Amino acid sequence: MSCLGDIGEDALVKRLIEQLGDECAKDESIILGPGDDCAVIDLAQRGPCDQYQLLKTDSMVEGIHYLAGTPAAKVGWKAVARVISDFGAMGGLPSHLLITIAMPPEKSVSYLEKLYQGMQKCALAYGATICGGETSAVPENAAAVISVAGTGWVEKSRCVRRSGGKRGDLILVTGKLGGSIRGKHLSFSPRVEEARWLTEHFRINAMMDLSDGLGADLPRLAAASQCGYLLNEQSLPRNKACNIAQAIGDGEDYELLFSTSAKTVKQLEQAWAKQFPELMLSVVGELTDNDHDAVPSGQGWQHFKSH
Amino acid sequence: MSCLGDIGEDALVKRLIEQLGDECAKDESIILGPGDDCAVIDLAQRGPCDQYQLLKTDSMVEGIHYLAGTPAAKVGWKAVARVISDFGAMGGLPSHLLITIAMPPEKSVSYLEKLYQGMQKCALAYGATICGGETSAVPENAAAVISVAGTGWVEKSRCVRRSGGKRGDLILVTGKLGGSIRGKHLSFSPRVEEARWLTEHFRINAMMDLSDGLGADLPRLAAASQCGYLLNEQSLPRNKACNIAQAIGDGEDYELLFSTSAKTVKQLEQAWAKQFPELMLSVVGELTDNDHDAVPSGQGWQHFKSH
Repeated sequence: MSCLGDIGEDALVKRLIEQLGDECAKDESIILGPGDDCAVIDLAQRGPCDQYQLLKTDSMVEGIHYLAGTPAAKVGWKAVARVISDFGAMGGLPSHLLITIAMPPEKSVSYLEKLYQGMQKCALAYGATICGGETSAVPENAAAVISVAGTGWVEKSRCVRRSGGKRGDLILVTGKLGGSIRGKHLSFSPRVEEARWLTEHFRINAMMDLSDGLGADLPRLAAASQCGYLLNEQSLPRNKACNIAQAIGDGEDYELLFSTSAKTVKQLEQAWAKQFPELMLSVVGELTDNDHDAVPSGQGWQHFKSH
Repeated sequence: MSCLGDIGEDALVKRLIEQLGDECAKDESIILGPGDDCAVIDLAQRGPCDQYQLLKTDSMVEGIHYLAGTPAAKVGWKAVARVISDFGAMGGLPSHLLITIAMPPEKSVSYLEKLYQGMQKCALAYGATICGGETSAVPENAAAVISVAGTGWVEKSRCVRRSGGKRGDLILVTGKLGGSIRGKHLSFSPRVEEARWLTEHFRINAMMDLSDGLGADLPRLAAASQCGYLLNEQSLPRNKACNIAQAIGDGEDYELLFSTSAKTVKQLEQAWAKQFPELMLSVVGELTDNDHDAVPSGQGWQHFKSH
């Protein structure tokens, strides 16, 4: 009998989705079910509307995504920022958030208050509103779990999936990769504004946020788009003191990974440099026929698999 | 410095909500923020619509809400049914669900598959669709946490809050109370159909579902309605082999607790008996001026407080 530690996250998620059957396909209001950054709901099923609703949930576990000694306000920022990053990765904006806290009884109340302050700070910075939640106990000394669920929205014409990449598209990433554990993973800025600008001005074929590392996330984007990919490792934008392996495998970059047609790229790069002069934009590879696979797909973070 | 184990759930939630400031009040699309069974969102802010969206998240912890040895499909049913029960308690229906699973690596994949089967069974039974989620690891031997977040909807005219109770209202409960731990807590049927029937045919002033026990939940409903209450302990509908204290304090009944005007009750009881002949409906008390408080409010489950 295989254990969660053996199977790896992608395979596990696939198995779990199979348990659900094809109910998502039958529900006409579900534009996208499992497998992208967010679920996408067509609210027009309930009235005229030119927007999709985005749904997302994301959790953080003490000892895995943050340490017990990390300042609570930073943990709170991160918990909310991760969800907002996914709304951005669809081309959308966050609207309402619900917070679930499962903590052992020995945690201090002031820790939780600071956690909430950090969450609220991030929510407000991105125009989201925390409108509910739930607290529960875990047994003494068990790991704390923080889960953030949220709704967001995107204009139907600007919703960018992972699956829209086309053979010949160039692959781009924002910012620099690697070394997030030194601090960025706690204080990153979700690339919502950048993604909104991209979808307003250019045709972005596929997009996602880099949470598990390029080595895990790029194969997911390519597979969803039924493409292979070539990665130009030398072109990877790396954070200080990071080598190529770290840029590919460290994870928690929370940068945008997207693909667009080669003919779009030059104009996009020029406009980007004017709009976001402080933030790098790099072409790192290309979507290809299905038979290329230039980075072993086991790289990057997979939550249940040993490395 | 006070710990979560000292402060009690209600006081903790109050402290956490204070951290959020009055942002919910400022957001015109939020009809109800924290403090009821669900958050309530007015989608009309994004287009004409006569419905509110309901948002809810709920989590279960191994060793607290279920045991490691409990059949996974039953755990899954319960996790989803708890959320659906809250949609029902607002007078609404569930629509879309997201599942978050935080499990230690030694759990078997087949356990998780059966968990998902139980979740899907419950979702389908109530017309909800699981459309996404997330899996995460917790450290070895840490407690598993299952969190279900969902959206639902309710016609604006049929949304029933906890806060609408009026002095002189009679207080009613469906079904029988107490002893849920013997099995009902794993296999209960959320009272969605019953709540929909109630709000279709009668003016229900306040309603919630009984999750923490009448002794904890009735004071919450009364306080939200700025009323006191009188409880007729002799009239409590009790499950077999349960005494009054168990009916008040055991929790996890997942029955409806609601209030309606005294003049409505007779007709309601007669119509109920025809519509739901198998399910008891009992008048158990009355909402009063604010100065009555006939059950110590520390009874029932409060998740962080020792008993």
